[in-house]
Amino acid sequence: MQLKATTIDIGTSRPIVLLNVDDADELGAHPLDRVRIDHAQETTTGIVKRTERLVEQGTIGLTEPLHRIRGTVTVTVAGRPHSVEYVRKKLDDIELAANELETIVHDIHEKRLSDIELGAFVSAVYANGLSIEETENLTQSMSNVGETLRWEPPVVPDKHSIGGVAGNCVTPIIVAIIAEAGLTIPKTSSRAVTSPAGTADVMEVFCEVEFTTDEIKSIVTETNGCLVWGGGVALSPVDDEIIRAENPLSIDPAGLLIASVLSKKRSVGSTHVVIDIPYGEGAKVQSLVGARELADNIKRVGSHLDMDVTCAITHGSDPIGRGIGPVLEARDVLAVLEGNGPESLRLKSIRLAEMLLDHCGVDASPTDILDSGGALNRFRRILVAQNGDPEISADDLVPGDESMTRRSDRDGIVTGVDNRQLCELARRAGAPLDSRAGLVVHQSAGDRVVEGDSLYTLYAEQPAKLVEAESLGERLEPVRVRGKADALVERR
Amino acid sequence: MQLKATTIDIGTSRPIVLLNVDDADELGAHPLDRVRIDHAQETTTGIVKRTERLVEQGTIGLTEPLHRIRGTVTVTVAGRPHSVEYVRKKLDDIELAANELETIVHDIHEKRLSDIELGAFVSAVYANGLSIEETENLTQSMSNVGETLRWEPPVVPDKHSIGGVAGNCVTPIIVAIIAEAGLTIPKTSSRAVTSPAGTADVMEVFCEVEFTTDEIKSIVTETNGCLVWGGGVALSPVDDEIIRAENPLSIDPAGLLIASVLSKKRSVGSTHVVIDIPYGEGAKVQSLVGARELADNIKRVGSHLDMDVTCAITHGSDPIGRGIGPVLEARDVLAVLEGNGPESLRLKSIRLAEMLLDHCGVDASPTDILDSGGALNRFRRILVAQNGDPEISADDLVPGDESMTRRSDRDGIVTGVDNRQLCELARRAGAPLDSRAGLVVHQSAGDRVVEGDSLYTLYAEQPAKLVEAESLGERLEPVRVRGKADALVERR
Repeated sequence: MQLKATTIDIGTSRPIVLLNVDDADELGAHPLDRVRIDHAQETTTGIVKRTERLVEQGTIGLTEPLHRIRGTVTVTVAGRPHSVEYVRKKLDDIELAANELETIVHDIHEKRLSDIELGAFVSAVYANGLSIEETENLTQSMSNVGETLRWEPPVVPDKHSIGGVAGNCVTPIIVAIIAEAGLTIPKTSSRAVTSPAGTADVMEVFCEVEFTTDEIKSIVTETNGCLVWGGGVALSPVDDEIIRAENPLSIDPAGLLIASVLSKKRSVGSTHVVIDIPYGEGAKVQSLVGARELADNIKRVGSHLDMDVTCAITHGSDPIGRGIGPVLEARDVLAVLEGNGPESLRLKSIRLAEMLLDHCGVDASPTDILDSGGALNRFRRILVAQNGDPEISADDLVPGDESMTRRSDRDGIVTGVDNRQLCELARRAGAPLDSRAGLVVHQSAGDRVVEGDSLYTLYAEQPAKLVEAESLGERLEPVRVRGKADALVERR
Repeated sequence: MQLKATTIDIGTSRPIVLLNVDDADELGAHPLDRVRIDHAQETTTGIVKRTERLVEQGTIGLTEPLHRIRGTVTVTVAGRPHSVEYVRKKLDDIELAANELETIVHDIHEKRLSDIELGAFVSAVYANGLSIEETENLTQSMSNVGETLRWEPPVVPDKHSIGGVAGNCVTPIIVAIIAEAGLTIPKTSSRAVTSPAGTADVMEVFCEVEFTTDEIKSIVTETNGCLVWGGGVALSPVDDEIIRAENPLSIDPAGLLIASVLSKKRSVGSTHVVIDIPYGEGAKVQSLVGARELADNIKRVGSHLDMDVTCAITHGSDPIGRGIGPVLEARDVLAVLEGNGPESLRLKSIRLAEMLLDHCGVDASPTDILDSGGALNRFRRILVAQNGDPEISADDLVPGDESMTRRSDRDGIVTGVDNRQLCELARRAGAPLDSRAGLVVHQSAGDRVVEGDSLYTLYAEQPAKLVEAESLGERLEPVRVRGKADALVERR
C-alpha cells in the first residue's frame, strides 16, 4: 500500500507508526504488528498503532526514530523477526548459538522487538541463565554494533563498578590519578537511571559532559583523560535497550551484566580494565562466593574479547563517601582531591587506582599522586578541557536550602546503613534532576551514637520534596541503631 | 502538578498519557514511568510518554482508556506496582501466594503493568511453570474481575477446545444439538488472533455476533442457546491481556491456558464443561501422556472452582472439516447440519455433544437430533434471534472468486496434513478479514492419491493475495504425499 509519510511527535525510542484504521484494516495490520516500509533507497520496519483521527487515510504517521523518512512510502505487513523464535528457545532453556544471539542483538539494535518480546528476552536470560559461551558470544555481538573509539597507546586503562552502592563516586578521583600517572584514560560514564546520581550527573556539576567522539579525542590528547557521558556517543546501543527492559523489573542477570559492561569497554577501546564488584547485604551480589564466581566469569569473557580484565571485590553493604546526590557527591570528590573528604571514598579510590596501575604494569603511588596535589591539578586540567571552572573548591559546592536532620532516638551502635533506602530518600528529595538535592550520612556501621546524635541530613531545592522525603524517612530505617538492651524491635 | 486534560486519538488499550517534556522534567517523570492522576471522585494510573509539541506545557494528553477524564487533574509520579515484585519472584522460581496472584491479576486488569512487565510475567510462568495451587488461585482471581453472567437453570453446559487444529468448527453444531436437547447453552467464542478463523468469525458469516449481556440473555431465553463473540462482553478481561502478551511469543504455558479457559467458563456461568484437548504433531499438546496430564490438571482446577469439568482427548494432527477460513468453515458447518458435509466434522461434533449430554445427565442422541433436522431447525432459530437469515443453505456460501488448486506430482499415500502450514496459507490468502478467503483440503492422512489428484484449493478475494499464498504454498508442504519407492526426499 502506498502511503504519504507524516511525522508524529511522541517521545519514543521505538519505530512506532500510526495507521488510519481503514488503511490498517485493508493491510490486515493489527496493533503491534510489524510493517515493512520501503522508500527511496531504504527499507525499515515499523510497529503498528491504529488511529481514527490522528492520521488521515492515505498517510502514515512516523515517530521520532523514523523522522528521516519523507514522501511516499510502500507499506506491507512484515513477519515476526527471527529473534522471537530464539527468545522462545531461551525460554525453553536451550543454549543459543552464536548466530542466534547475533540475530537477537541485531533485531534489538534495529528496534524490531516489541516491549513484550524484549521483556521476554531479559526474563528468559534471568530465569534460565546464559552459559559462559553464550555470554562471550552475546558480548562480542553487542560490541560489534554502534560506534567504537580507538586510541594510539597500546595500553588504555578503564574501571567500572557493577553498582548498587550509594555514593561510591570514585571514578573522577581514579581518572585524575591515572591520567596524572601518564596513562591515557578516556572514561565514559552513565547518568542515573534508578539511582540518585550517576558519575555523569556528578561531573555535570563541574563541567560539560556531552561531547562528540572528535571532541573526546581532543580532550584526551590534551589531558590524558576525560570524564564524559557515554550516552552522548552511541557506544553499545543495544546495551541501553537491554537496560531499559531490565530496569522496571529490577533484574540484572549475570550474563547480561557481563555483556553490558564488557561490550561498552570494548567499544570505548579499553585494553586493561578493573571491575569493582561490591558485595554484601543490599548490593547486587550478596555473598563473597557469588562475587568470586562473577569475577571469574568476567575475566573469562574479557580474555575472549582480548581485554585484560581484573576484578576488585569490595565491601558493598555501606555507602562510600558521605554525600548522595550530584552536588553532594561532587563535594566529596573535590574534598578528597583537595586532601580532605571522607576516608571511605579516599581509601577505595586509592586501592582501585593501585590495582589499575599495577594491572597496566606502571609503577606509581596513587597516595603520593593524591597527597602531592598532582591529582587535583590534573582534575582541574580536565575541567578546563570540558569547559568547566577549574577554580572551584569543595566549599563552593552548596546543597539545597531546604534541609532536615534525622537524629537517633537512643544510645547504641549503628548496626547497618541501607544503600537502597538512602538512594530512595535522595531521589524523593529531588536527586538527580534537582542537582543540589540529596542527603549526607553522618554515621557508618559500627559507630557508637548517643540519643540526639544526627544520623543523616536531607537536602532539597523544593520544600514540597523535602516534606515528601522526610515522611518517607519516617517509614524507613536507612541508618539502623541498636541499643544495648534492645531485644524487641517494636510491638504493634 | 495541575494539568488540563486533553484527549489523544491513538488506538491503544493501555492508559498512556502524553506529557510535555518540560512538565515531565519538572515532575521527574521518565518514559514508561507511571503517574497517578487524581480528578473529581476518581484516582487512576497512566503510563508516561513525553512529547515536545503534541501536547502543550500545562496539559496532559490522555489516550482512549482515559478519555472519560475531563477538566483539570492533579498528576504525581507513582511508584511501581507491587505485582512487579511478584513477577520477579516467579522469575526466581518461587511459588506465589494467593494474594500475590490476586495482585498481579488486579494490576493487569487496571492496566498498570507495562508491556515489558507483562512480557516478563508470561515468560516467568512459561519458564518456571505454575503449581496446581497457583493455577487454582490464578483462575479464581481472573474469574473475579470483569463481568459475569448467571442463569436460572442449575445445569449450564459448555464446551471449549484448547485449539491448534485447522477447521475444527464443531461449536455451532454442538450448540444446536444441545439447545435442541432442551439444555441452556449460552456460548461465547473468540475471533481469530493468529488463526484463519475463530468461531465468532465463522458465525459472523451467518448473523450478528456482538451483543450486550441483556441481549444475550434474551436470545438464550428464546432459543436455549446463543453463538456470540465473547470479546463483546468483558468476561475475564485479564485473560485478553494475557493472551495479547502470549501471542507474539507463541507461548501458552499450561497454567495460563487452564486459567484462561476456566476463568472464562466461570464468568459466563457454565456449570458442566467439556474441554477438547487435541494432541499430536503440530498441535498444542504433542503426546497422549501430555494430554492426559493436562486433562487431570484442568479437572482439578475446575473442581476447585465448583465446576463439573471433563476432558475429551482428540486427534489433533489433521484438520477437522475440509474448509479453512470464515465462509469455507461456515459452509462445512451448515452442510453437516443439513445432513451432508465432511465426516470428520460431523463425527467429532456428535462425539463431543454425546459427552456433554452424558456429563449433564441428559439422555438424548446427538445423531438422532442431527438426522431428524432438529439441530438445523434450532440453528436457524438462533440465526433469527441474532438477526441473521435463517433461509441460508450451504450452497449459498461461495468462497472468493480467485482460486488455484495444488495437485500431487506423484502416485502415493498422504502421510500427513500440517495444521500450522494450512493456517498460514489461509491467512496469507486473506482470512479472516477477507471472509471468503481460505482453502479447502481435499485429502486426509492415509488417503491414496495418483499423480494429478488435487491436494488443496486456495481461495482469495484479491488476486494479489492469491499470488502470495500460492508462492508460499510452493515453499511449504501442507499435504505430504509419499510414493511407494520414495526413500530420498530431495537432493540439493
